[in-house]
Amino acid sequence: MGDQQEVSEAGAAALPVPSLRWEERPEGPVVVLLDQTRLPAEEVELVCTDVPALVEAIRTLAVRGAPLLGIAGAYGVALAAARGFDVDEAAQALAHARPTAVNLAYGVRRATAAYRAAVRDRAGAGEAAAAALAEARTVHAEDVEASRRMAEHGLALLRELLPGGGHRILTHCNTGALVSGGEGTALAVALAAHRAGELRQLWVDETRPLLQGTRLTAYEAARTGMPYTVLADGAAGSLFAAGEVDAVLIGADRIAADGAVANKVGSYPLAVLARYHHVPFVVVAPVSTVDLETEEGADIEVEQRPGHEVTELSLPYARGAGAERSGGFGLAPWGAQAHNPAFDVTPPELVTAMVTEAGVVSPVTRGGLADMCSMSRWSKSRSGNGMMAE
Amino acid sequence: MGDQQEVSEAGAAALPVPSLRWEERPEGPVVVLLDQTRLPAEEVELVCTDVPALVEAIRTLAVRGAPLLGIAGAYGVALAAARGFDVDEAAQALAHARPTAVNLAYGVRRATAAYRAAVRDRAGAGEAAAAALAEARTVHAEDVEASRRMAEHGLALLRELLPGGGHRILTHCNTGALVSGGEGTALAVALAAHRAGELRQLWVDETRPLLQGTRLTAYEAARTGMPYTVLADGAAGSLFAAGEVDAVLIGADRIAADGAVANKVGSYPLAVLARYHHVPFVVVAPVSTVDLETEEGADIEVEQRPGHEVTELSLPYARGAGAERSGGFGLAPWGAQAHNPAFDVTPPELVTAMVTEAGVVSPVTRGGLADMCSMSRWSKSRSGNGMMAE
Repeated sequence: MGDQQEVSEAGAAALPVPSLRWEERPEGPVVVLLDQTRLPAEEVELVCTDVPALVEAIRTLAVRGAPLLGIAGAYGVALAAARGFDVDEAAQALAHARPTAVNLAYGVRRATAAYRAAVRDRAGAGEAAAAALAEARTVHAEDVEASRRMAEHGLALLRELLPGGGHRILTHCNTGALVSGGEGTALAVALAAHRAGELRQLWVDETRPLLQGTRLTAYEAARTGMPYTVLADGAAGSLFAAGEVDAVLIGADRIAADGAVANKVGSYPLAVLARYHHVPFVVVAPVSTVDLETEEGADIEVEQRPGHEVTELSLPYARGAGAERSGGFGLAPWGAQAHNPAFDVTPPELVTAMVTEAGVVSPVTRGGLADMCSMSRWSKSRSGNGMMAE
Repeated sequence: MGDQQEVSEAGAAALPVPSLRWEERPEGPVVVLLDQTRLPAEEVELVCTDVPALVEAIRTLAVRGAPLLGIAGAYGVALAAARGFDVDEAAQALAHARPTAVNLAYGVRRATAAYRAAVRDRAGAGEAAAAALAEARTVHAEDVEASRRMAEHGLALLRELLPGGGHRILTHCNTGALVSGGEGTALAVALAAHRAGELRQLWVDETRPLLQGTRLTAYEAARTGMPYTVLADGAAGSLFAAGEVDAVLIGADRIAADGAVANKVGSYPLAVLARYHHVPFVVVAPVSTVDLETEEGADIEVEQRPGHEVTELSLPYARGAGAERSGGFGLAPWGAQAHNPAFDVTPPELVTAMVTEAGVVSPVTRGGLADMCSMSRWSKSRSGNGMMAE
């Protein structure tokens, strides 16, 4: 439980409770999530006692964000094992809950491999479940450490790219403590800059359709005291034109072997705008987001989500006007169809630099990425505790 | 009333009632608006009996869109004159109700000039008011005609740029019958392509924060049977990358003498994306939107609107879930600040072509624009009935 306590407190400045935790209860273990669909209006914990509940929480985005999905996937396998459910079936369901985020499958694979290795070694059900849980905790602890290192590397990169501080950083979607065991990816870098007194402005893209910027990044920025301003996604263009953006920092949901980056829809237009205005476009993600088996951007499956996320406003909460739990409000005419990809893909040539826990890759090339991955994985397998070489 | 009837029916396919009409009632004349803040859920007419009510309707966007604001401004002056209010004061209030849309000031100026000319000619109050009304009707009729000609010129341009038909057109905000006495500007071109069997897909940017795409363009597209699909503004980027956009068609709220285009925020990022992907970016607007007294893009005042339009969802209607007239729902944490410019400015070098009722300017140059304006204005003053030379 030492690791667990440690990782729970890592994001304390940004969150009232951890975004995800494992809890042993008298009736059996559970995975407890901070329900992200209800933020910022309500801080509600969601208790998952089985894998179907966790899969549902992943699909509805109660738990979301690449690194956290990896952690959730690993604990999900541990939960199935501890409660005596079919582990392979649970692993399948978890790994396919969302198609684009590679970390989810990665976390599932790690915990499943630990479970199977224990079974192969003739461990009993209890021991095999403990092995899965231990691996989930390792995935979790690695993410805390990765988060810390990404913030360090990212801050060093900002200092190199933008000497003098006073950064005005634009970010998209949410990439902070809510998506991580630690303080996150891109937002962790912005937070490090803030703590170093070097952040002048955090521009927060609202991130339609699900408003992760307005709801979640603003929530974390407010809690950590970052100077932030929300804007409609379409308003970023004139900020670039006015010279009000010094760098773009975003996360990633899958990075192909060629360095193409799948991230929240709306990231690619920012990459094009950044290039057009000569502004650095920086991707911050753990090595586990790199999927060397996906050759290039075109091979990344982009999740298509229901059109009603665009044509209706569905929030489990609704503050004000006495309308509590209002549900979906129709915005479009009846019968309107919507195109609603959850992600888009930015080609490597538009990415100025990629920051991982293992260091910075710039320019982003197939070779540079492969080198970083092999170094990081070699180091991980050698040290055995998931710590990375720098 | 002949003109009036004619113009009222021009947008009939797209609208259940005209977007704006003058009505003589026993208690005095009124300006009747189709309240655009309540669409698509409710088709409600708003009756303005005086100029303050009309100014409020302009500020709250119950009536909006560059050409229609010109018409509204002209009828507003006629309303003040007919009801015996101070015409200069009314003209001031109307012209400054919104700062960016130049057509508003243009319509006000035309009706005021007609009123003053009548007064100078020693007309009585009734005659001067009638002169203002006649001029407002001329502005209105000219817009119907301009709309028809923009559609013709725009369709011809599409055929030239994209031989073979089957166009997939991306548009932003709303530029149809709701913004015009006729069928509008950019959307009128798309509608002409649809009627000619040449429109395969209309991609409708939702247009945050006020969702004019989702609410209004989708409403008009549905009524006219255009094949359309709504998308979050940030989802346009991957459509370009996938080769799914053949042309971008947008309107304009002010065009500077150098050809820089102020239009709904989110237009400039589309211009950059279009350039990056070698897709034509076409602006469709009446000549009255060109403001030769504004030298260049940097001189255009961009209206800053309240942050709550971004941080809350305020719709005068809310369908479903039993929550009628729900008002503002908080989306962001309490106290969140938002940057909310209503417009952005696209430099002329990113505009492939500009379509007006007088023809097409391409490339967009200061000289080409000036020539078109002088030709059009000369023709207008010569013919005296507001019809344009081609």
